[in-house]
Amino acid sequence: MVATAGIIIIGDEILSGRTKDTNINWIACKLDHLGIRLKEARIIPDKSDTIIKTIQAFTGQYTYVFSCGGIGPTHDDITTECVAKAFNQKLYKDAEAMRRLKLHYEGTNVEFNEARQKMAIVPTNSKLIDNPVSAAPGYRIENLFVFAGVPKIMWGMFDSILTELTGGKKLKSKTVSSNVGEGLIAKDLEKIENDFFNVKIGSYPYFKPGSFGTSIVLKSEDEISLQKAAEAILEIIIKLGGKGKIFDGNEIDDRSL
Amino acid sequence: MVATAGIIIIGDEILSGRTKDTNINWIACKLDHLGIRLKEARIIPDKSDTIIKTIQAFTGQYTYVFSCGGIGPTHDDITTECVAKAFNQKLYKDAEAMRRLKLHYEGTNVEFNEARQKMAIVPTNSKLIDNPVSAAPGYRIENLFVFAGVPKIMWGMFDSILTELTGGKKLKSKTVSSNVGEGLIAKDLEKIENDFFNVKIGSYPYFKPGSFGTSIVLKSEDEISLQKAAEAILEIIIKLGGKGKIFDGNEIDDRSL
Repeated sequence: MVATAGIIIIGDEILSGRTKDTNINWIACKLDHLGIRLKEARIIPDKSDTIIKTIQAFTGQYTYVFSCGGIGPTHDDITTECVAKAFNQKLYKDAEAMRRLKLHYEGTNVEFNEARQKMAIVPTNSKLIDNPVSAAPGYRIENLFVFAGVPKIMWGMFDSILTELTGGKKLKSKTVSSNVGEGLIAKDLEKIENDFFNVKIGSYPYFKPGSFGTSIVLKSEDEISLQKAAEAILEIIIKLGGKGKIFDGNEIDDRSL
Repeated sequence: MVATAGIIIIGDEILSGRTKDTNINWIACKLDHLGIRLKEARIIPDKSDTIIKTIQAFTGQYTYVFSCGGIGPTHDDITTECVAKAFNQKLYKDAEAMRRLKLHYEGTNVEFNEARQKMAIVPTNSKLIDNPVSAAPGYRIENLFVFAGVPKIMWGMFDSILTELTGGKKLKSKTVSSNVGEGLIAKDLEKIENDFFNVKIGSYPYFKPGSFGTSIVLKSEDEISLQKAAEAILEIIIKLGGKGKIFDGNEIDDRSL
């Protein structure tokens, strides 16, 4: 079975345009490397019923769900109380989280006050996620991983839970970069996707000063089909009077043909 | 009534991490200026039933819905057929869209072939959206605006439909930038949000080499409440031994206190 995932980004500041989300792409790349298929990402507001419904829909549907944002000390950080409601759990102040936070603030001029202690409150039946950056832990409950929204903190938390994720077979990919327009090769691509039922083909036009063309990305679990399909596409490009080149991977931006 | 909006980003390449979405933030900023409240953004795969369900859910819920991606000439561009199904419409080749595309390709060495003619196919009861960049139009059907996914093209299309959007009263905003930690001011912020029922307060920690602090963003339709709430927060910051400054707007990154 292929492991799937969903991402939930929680925060009014993303929807108002104030903050640019970068977490979706960062997690998407990590999951791609792990062979876990990201199926959907949602950016939702700091609004209880939306958060609860989205968590319930996602955790029921995907192997892993990752949420980012809303676990800080202030009044607009409502993720944890929503997670507890979504899983029908209670909230409690976790002793280990308290210990880590106390240690973190010890010897600084920052007081470990009631608001900051809020960050030690987690749902029952959850498991802490280490935060190597700023101590305040995230947590896992069933298949939901609850992370902070600040990218640097989220990166640390994600890397802390890497061993808990079981990826499927990683999709192999190749890119055929070409100088032919997307509209010229469209019909043939459809034929090739029909011929190679186990290869998924995406077509992405590019434009740069003085030139344009199409990057065709092929993905498959099967290396041989992947290579054959890429060669078939290259052959078509040449027949159409164009130039093309096959690259490994799908993050190629080298269009020097 | 406040106008609301939802954004649907359609494309496997975003979910695989290959392409970074920048359209959500760009549209979010535009909507914020227009006084339209963005309520949710979803990134979904090139998968018919997901696209259809998401369009139906969003158009039933929000004043305006914007979709980006999947209207090109290739086999993986399935947005238009999904839109037609979502609204129970047929597809037809639009004469005006054909005229624009013909004109666009005339005198170039690019053939206006069958695949490219696919870009003139739109749902019945839709209205073309101008594409000043690459001719192939988007379209509007009821409260859904269907745009291309390529940012430069989407920008042009969005600006073409600006006059069709009716914003509400624009939310005014102020930012109180301070050098106090989020956890120190958390409790007082909650009190101020309770005191000023018509002001929404968000709290965003920042870190930079050698310093940290909190930007507190206030939003309201009412200028006077906004100013009073900002002053109340500044007063608290000073009482707490910190420094702070009130700025207009919510995109302030000047933390020189």
